Amino acid sequence: MLLLSWNLMISKNKIKSLKTLKVKKYRIRNKKALLEGKRLIDEAINSGADIETIWFTKDALDHHSNALLIDKIKSQKILYDEMTLDDLDELSNTENSQGIIAEISIEKYADSKINNIKDDNLLILDGLSDPGNLGTILRTCAWYNIKSVILTSDCVEPFNLKCLRSGVGAHFYFDHITHANREDVIKYLNENNYDVHCATLEGKDISEVTLNNKWAIILGSEAHGLHDDFNVFDSITIPGDGKIESLNASVACGIILDRLINK
Amino acid sequence: MLLLSWNLMISKNKIKSLKTLKVKKYRIRNKKALLEGKRLIDEAINSGADIETIWFTKDALDHHSNALLIDKIKSQKILYDEMTLDDLDELSNTENSQGIIAEISIEKYADSKINNIKDDNLLILDGLSDPGNLGTILRTCAWYNIKSVILTSDCVEPFNLKCLRSGVGAHFYFDHITHANREDVIKYLNENNYDVHCATLEGKDISEVTLNNKWAIILGSEAHGLHDDFNVFDSITIPGDGKIESLNASVACGIILDRLINK
Repeated sequence: MLLLSWNLMISKNKIKSLKTLKVKKYRIRNKKALLEGKRLIDEAINSGADIETIWFTKDALDHHSNALLIDKIKSQKILYDEMTLDDLDELSNTENSQGIIAEISIEKYADSKINNIKDDNLLILDGLSDPGNLGTILRTCAWYNIKSVILTSDCVEPFNLKCLRSGVGAHFYFDHITHANREDVIKYLNENNYDVHCATLEGKDISEVTLNNKWAIILGSEAHGLHDDFNVFDSITIPGDGKIESLNASVACGIILDRLINK
Repeated sequence: MLLLSWNLMISKNKIKSLKTLKVKKYRIRNKKALLEGKRLIDEAINSGADIETIWFTKDALDHHSNALLIDKIKSQKILYDEMTLDDLDELSNTENSQGIIAEISIEKYADSKINNIKDDNLLILDGLSDPGNLGTILRTCAWYNIKSVILTSDCVEPFNLKCLRSGVGAHFYFDHITHANREDVIKYLNENNYDVHCATLEGKDISEVTLNNKWAIILGSEAHGLHDDFNVFDSITIPGDGKIESLNASVACGIILDRLINK
């Protein structure tokens, strides 16, 4: 544990550098991201996230409800420090920071390459644009022990605060959260003999599908469904009453994983 | 079809009255709500929503991409009119209004009482606070042909724009979206002999559950789970790998409905 004394407060330069992490370009360039809020930071610690420093406002440091979290931080020798509320407000995107914010390294994910993935079970997301949906999907994958997710290049960036918030720490269970273009995804799946199923609105009833040991599921975007490039693969559908056009992407993902994995 | 001529633009008083519908209190008092965006309004028409008037900006009226929607509005004799972009911006909560906004009556739901529900299959939501989750859950219910939902009194109000947006028109398929307090819900379920299952993190594996003809599923809030009052009922759980604490509420709802209904 390295707790700096209170007169060595965080420098203006460090605040400035942290502030850049609100912007996707700098998260990618610096391979770092921000986490905020007690629950999210607690879950990130539990899931082994590479946390650089956690900052608390004075009130948050002193508040009895954070005592357990601070004990955990100390016992795991994670660096923490104090930050003024004004500084924290400059970094925070929500009203839910609860006076706690962390800088994490996302180098493991930024450097991840599709050809390094060795998992037998994959989820591939095609053009997913809603950060809330992406976070929820990552959380569902963690529930079902899927450790690698591939995002086509036009997917939303997974380390923005909204996506991290809806993931509630699930991001850090993954071996790979990898961006790749469609061509490379298809090549990789074929060369590595995955049994591939695309979720569409007009495929085979999902109850007729049985997974082999090595499988990949491809899920399309909320607005545009699946790109035609993926038509080379088998197509599956969740049976419904047909009154509404589609299910929410994260709900569809949950149902598909549950059906196929818990069958 | 009653298309007012363009020199009879919407009055300032009407704008003022529409603007109040951004606030929950006035939606409940006036039994009206606002819808915005092409897809949502189109789906609301499809699902038989009680639409009072639809307003378009001049650009939206003239845009070829809205021609089919306007034909549908005309053929269904729904009142529509023009509104200036400035007026529409005052009413809109999002950047996604696309120049289209509608006033709808929610009287059917505002006046709905638990004892009037006659459906054999019910979803009950306990203290759900996230409007996006609620909308997504309503959409999932519509997919599985559940026509009545009961919300405990501390649930988020379902006709705010965020909830309507994530519901994508599903709200209007329902016979009942009814608020009731927990005591009345339990009394109603017992008196009407529902087979009741509560979704929790420590219940019976959902694969062991078979539904009777008349059933109700109770789902707890994102943050606080299920209220102790509901402990009188059977408890069911989605099996998972256990690494993360819980699934998102709307994902859990989708998995449970799919498992129990499509069994």
